[in-house]
Amino acid sequence: MTIKELTSIQINTTDAKALEAAKSRWDAIAKPIDGLGDFEDMVCKIAAAKADMCPDISKKALVIMCADNGVVAEGVSQTDQSVTRDVAVLMGKKESSVGIMAKHYPVEIFTVDVGINCDGTPKGVIDKKVRKGTGDILKGPAMSLEECLKAIEAGIETVKLCRDKKYEIIATGEMGIGNTTTATALLCALTGLEPAAVTGRGAGLTDEGLKHKIEVIEETLKFHLEDKDKKGIKGSREVFEALRKFGGLDIAGLTGVYIGGAMLGIPIVIDGFISAVAAFAAEGIVKGCKDFMIASHKGREKGMEEILKRLSLKPVIDADMALGEGTGAIMLFPLLDMVMSLFSGGVAFNETTIKQYERFRK
Amino acid sequence: MTIKELTSIQINTTDAKALEAAKSRWDAIAKPIDGLGDFEDMVCKIAAAKADMCPDISKKALVIMCADNGVVAEGVSQTDQSVTRDVAVLMGKKESSVGIMAKHYPVEIFTVDVGINCDGTPKGVIDKKVRKGTGDILKGPAMSLEECLKAIEAGIETVKLCRDKKYEIIATGEMGIGNTTTATALLCALTGLEPAAVTGRGAGLTDEGLKHKIEVIEETLKFHLEDKDKKGIKGSREVFEALRKFGGLDIAGLTGVYIGGAMLGIPIVIDGFISAVAAFAAEGIVKGCKDFMIASHKGREKGMEEILKRLSLKPVIDADMALGEGTGAIMLFPLLDMVMSLFSGGVAFNETTIKQYERFRK
Repeated sequence: MTIKELTSIQINTTDAKALEAAKSRWDAIAKPIDGLGDFEDMVCKIAAAKADMCPDISKKALVIMCADNGVVAEGVSQTDQSVTRDVAVLMGKKESSVGIMAKHYPVEIFTVDVGINCDGTPKGVIDKKVRKGTGDILKGPAMSLEECLKAIEAGIETVKLCRDKKYEIIATGEMGIGNTTTATALLCALTGLEPAAVTGRGAGLTDEGLKHKIEVIEETLKFHLEDKDKKGIKGSREVFEALRKFGGLDIAGLTGVYIGGAMLGIPIVIDGFISAVAAFAAEGIVKGCKDFMIASHKGREKGMEEILKRLSLKPVIDADMALGEGTGAIMLFPLLDMVMSLFSGGVAFNETTIKQYERFRK
Repeated sequence: MTIKELTSIQINTTDAKALEAAKSRWDAIAKPIDGLGDFEDMVCKIAAAKADMCPDISKKALVIMCADNGVVAEGVSQTDQSVTRDVAVLMGKKESSVGIMAKHYPVEIFTVDVGINCDGTPKGVIDKKVRKGTGDILKGPAMSLEECLKAIEAGIETVKLCRDKKYEIIATGEMGIGNTTTATALLCALTGLEPAAVTGRGAGLTDEGLKHKIEVIEETLKFHLEDKDKKGIKGSREVFEALRKFGGLDIAGLTGVYIGGAMLGIPIVIDGFISAVAAFAAEGIVKGCKDFMIASHKGREKGMEEILKRLSLKPVIDADMALGEGTGAIMLFPLLDMVMSLFSGGVAFNETTIKQYERFRK
């Protein structure tokens, strides 16, 4: 794929008729109007995305993008790059946190090596390695134009693989030491938000460590951004450039997953902060992707709320989580199962002796 | 049970050692510190409540208290009392909203008739009918002292039944047309909060309907409360009196469920507003019950946030839900399953090549 091909991708609009039909179906079910609140809206959005008023989302996948980040050399994280590989090895055996959480739940996990800093790819992990980790963003761009395109393509291809295997909804996850730093730098570049306002502690930092992380992000932004770009970046090509300079291969891979979902009409579930920044980049590069995105949890990192607001999304789980790997995203799945059970199998008012409730407010 | 026996119930304190051991267990699992956020605290609380550092909560129940409320005569709801019975009939067949949502999830549902306004009790529903619906609280107390005690006992007995059947955690639910009115009146009586600040639209009301509902609650408070009680009610006996005057049999039944859970060391999951008001009443009557309560969702009704704050509880689902029947409470269960899977089966740092993360902040 060339940069021109990427920025020319057109996303089909979602199906407004399926959305309206799904809304009417909810109101006909014998329960208080809007009783399941945001979950009703979520099902309607999925109906619109899949152009099916009663969409089947029983076959579920999780795609985890793993890669290393050169910025770890600046001391922004508690651990070193070896942990990315170590956790990916566990992921390949379904023994990392998300693998164990999903042990008794039917979600297929696709772990992708899009740039782990090691020779070869761990067993059970899909090899889409672009390079062994990115460059240090404080000193240069994270990756070349070609590398960034390849990582995005890896994401799109993984969605195609899932589509071919008949998966109907895909959760996102990531693993890459240092990726709250790259994600925060990218978010600041795209929005003009101040690093001090949106930088969090990642997997754990002292007050001093957090201060240093903020400084590294500030210096990185100074190094890469021209004055005209300091208030945020808009155009497709410019967003791609920011992703290439600040992002990681994991973030670019997830950006590709969101774009692929929108291209193929498959809803993609956002996990936490890093996954959300990738979603924001995807919408920046290919307008309309956000209509295929579903928010799961609010997350602990500070920038999350801002991103989801800009994508017109509202998370339904609010539990101060910050684990990564897609753990928050897959927690949405059993909730959706219960909600879909009522949506598809609920008793309608006209099958009962109960008079249908009236909708007094929109 | 006499009123003296009720107000003399002593709750055992929860197990601080089990709580600390559970905390240490979380920190030893190969994942970022506090990665599962509020869910980690929730598991620790359950460990303390069950005095077991690795508690088994695989066998789960839902107790739904159904009853009618005389205040419906004042036109505070969109539908009439017959809907309580009609929905209870569906519940008995597992065909109400919560039954259908739980169709593919292993939770046992115990529906209890604690005061439905009909002859007999619907099939599949446990008969604990105290009387056929309460009196109109605008014109007199909802029930007599004996009736209120009987409803509370029905709740305690249902928890005992669940304990005998080896259920390890219990979700709460309710069905009773008019019960957002009784719950709001009771909340205002207990806290001194203004009806206008905490009255919601229940299953749906016009602006005018909402205004009328607020007026009915204001008049009810004036009718029953002496000046000295207008800023809120504290003592055990006084809280019981407020429950008897303003509450419904459904609320009193749930109050008994919370008290029973605390007596028997079984965690009880709060559902929405009505269930939360019952939880607040339980803590008011028997101090210490709150250590056995788990919040599930935030709910739409306005008073919810205030009650949960006063019980030191934080919900993890935030989806503007207002369905009742325990739908929000049972949605916590599959989330807890995933979390417990990691808690009990997670790989510890010392089983990996990864160095344990340090905890820098409490």
